[in-house]
Amino acid sequence: MRKIKTVAITGGTHGNELTGVYLIKKFFKNPDLVKRSNFETLFMHTNLGAMKQCTRYVDKDLNRTFVTQDLADPSRCTYEDILAKNLNEKLGPKGSKNPHVDFIVDLHSTTSDMGLSIIIDNDSPLVWKLAAYLSVHEPKLHIFRWKGDTAEVSFVNSIAPNGFAIEVGPIPQGVLRADLFFETETLVQKILDFFEKYNNNTLETLPKEIEIYNHIKLVDFPRDKKGEIKAAVHPNLQDHGYIKVQKGDPLFIDLEGRVIYYEEEADVYALFINEAAYYEKGFAMCFAEKKTIKVS
Amino acid sequence: MRKIKTVAITGGTHGNELTGVYLIKKFFKNPDLVKRSNFETLFMHTNLGAMKQCTRYVDKDLNRTFVTQDLADPSRCTYEDILAKNLNEKLGPKGSKNPHVDFIVDLHSTTSDMGLSIIIDNDSPLVWKLAAYLSVHEPKLHIFRWKGDTAEVSFVNSIAPNGFAIEVGPIPQGVLRADLFFETETLVQKILDFFEKYNNNTLETLPKEIEIYNHIKLVDFPRDKKGEIKAAVHPNLQDHGYIKVQKGDPLFIDLEGRVIYYEEEADVYALFINEAAYYEKGFAMCFAEKKTIKVS
Repeated sequence: MRKIKTVAITGGTHGNELTGVYLIKKFFKNPDLVKRSNFETLFMHTNLGAMKQCTRYVDKDLNRTFVTQDLADPSRCTYEDILAKNLNEKLGPKGSKNPHVDFIVDLHSTTSDMGLSIIIDNDSPLVWKLAAYLSVHEPKLHIFRWKGDTAEVSFVNSIAPNGFAIEVGPIPQGVLRADLFFETETLVQKILDFFEKYNNNTLETLPKEIEIYNHIKLVDFPRDKKGEIKAAVHPNLQDHGYIKVQKGDPLFIDLEGRVIYYEEEADVYALFINEAAYYEKGFAMCFAEKKTIKVS
Repeated sequence: MRKIKTVAITGGTHGNELTGVYLIKKFFKNPDLVKRSNFETLFMHTNLGAMKQCTRYVDKDLNRTFVTQDLADPSRCTYEDILAKNLNEKLGPKGSKNPHVDFIVDLHSTTSDMGLSIIIDNDSPLVWKLAAYLSVHEPKLHIFRWKGDTAEVSFVNSIAPNGFAIEVGPIPQGVLRADLFFETETLVQKILDFFEKYNNNTLETLPKEIEIYNHIKLVDFPRDKKGEIKAAVHPNLQDHGYIKVQKGDPLFIDLEGRVIYYEEEADVYALFINEAAYYEKGFAMCFAEKKTIKVS
């Protein structure tokens, strides 16, 4: 077993997601909080420009910018392109067998009612072992396996061989919520505890199967011929996450009050419902299936 | 009695407050919805630049830009300065005895749990007569008399002799919520009904007294020496609006988990709690007193 040498906790990747911004500030003030006996913990703000203006990004979404080919393309020079190259140097490089960090935990929040979630886009056994550990130690946690909205996974955490995003909500952009701030901090502590036990070979026996939500597809808002949104998320779905949707259930309501229903046969779970940052990406929600998967 | 000739409904003053943005879009599609027999209704998006980028503003807060002296100052030339001068020409001019519109209803939303509120900063008897009417026809409505955060009231609605803002929440910036969209529309319809009855002299007898929340002061977040926020709104206040606060009640919790209490003797009501756009203005919440005022 290869031991974990370095873990990075990153926040402020989206500058208006204040849970991560303030948690990293707290670690700067009290670095002992993330120190462990047998590995190094790095922590950093990844997008100071977006944080300063309290927007998701300056020029483009940093959390979709880690495409291997683009990282090597010197002509890519927006603010986030430069950040991505710097981060890739510091924490990666992406795809390397000898990266600077072994694991990245990237901190996010969402306007959607995702509760306390981790978003996994990685098949690494270590990632899924940690997911199994957290499923025991944080029963409220939802585990969502994300297929992605890009050809190559291009999240911040993709530049290390292992990692995931923590996603908590509902939190408006630009708002710090005390309850979810402390819940996120507790989750980060449990993640660091896992690595310490892992390196010490003192991990308890973990479940061999865990329940996850598995990405099926992203669903856009109904739009008119000009591409403008013409219906809102239906109140039955608003303020819910991981909610079961069956044929005939309302999905949207248009501005005149007409309901638009789910018409497919298969039952699904809806999540990432009405996330502000996804309006421009063209996603009103994500459909997933609930399934039990083997993790060892 | 001077009859109402023209009413303006304005939305998108803050480009990321989508309730107003989409309600005005609906009126463009169905202008008959706001037509009445005995006055003209104008409706418009006031800040297309901010709407396009889904931000509160491009250069500065349009809803603090209608300062009489500034409107006459040709050297003021930011995006919102120009918009303000144009709107003032079209709907005002501010302070005129013969303005283009008699009444402005400006549509807003907030990340704070303000429910369905109107924010009044105007002593006009007509405004308070309408408030009395709405207190009967919309029992859920909160009426908040705002003292302002600027020396001169410089809201969009201040360029007409009469007007107020509708403020609904909680809604994250950049999000359309169906329930509050339709509630706002219903409130706008009731406002237009009032003007029609007013002009026809068919208004029923209205209450002579109404209950309002009266602005006492704005309260900032606890900050460190650098001016950085060092505590979040306490969970007891988060997700509440118009909540009574007494000596000894928690107000904030700092990032280390220490609670900061309300230490003044007077009972107050807290509102506009944790509004995203007020972080940069330096307001974590507003304190108000509940009082009954005479309106005729």
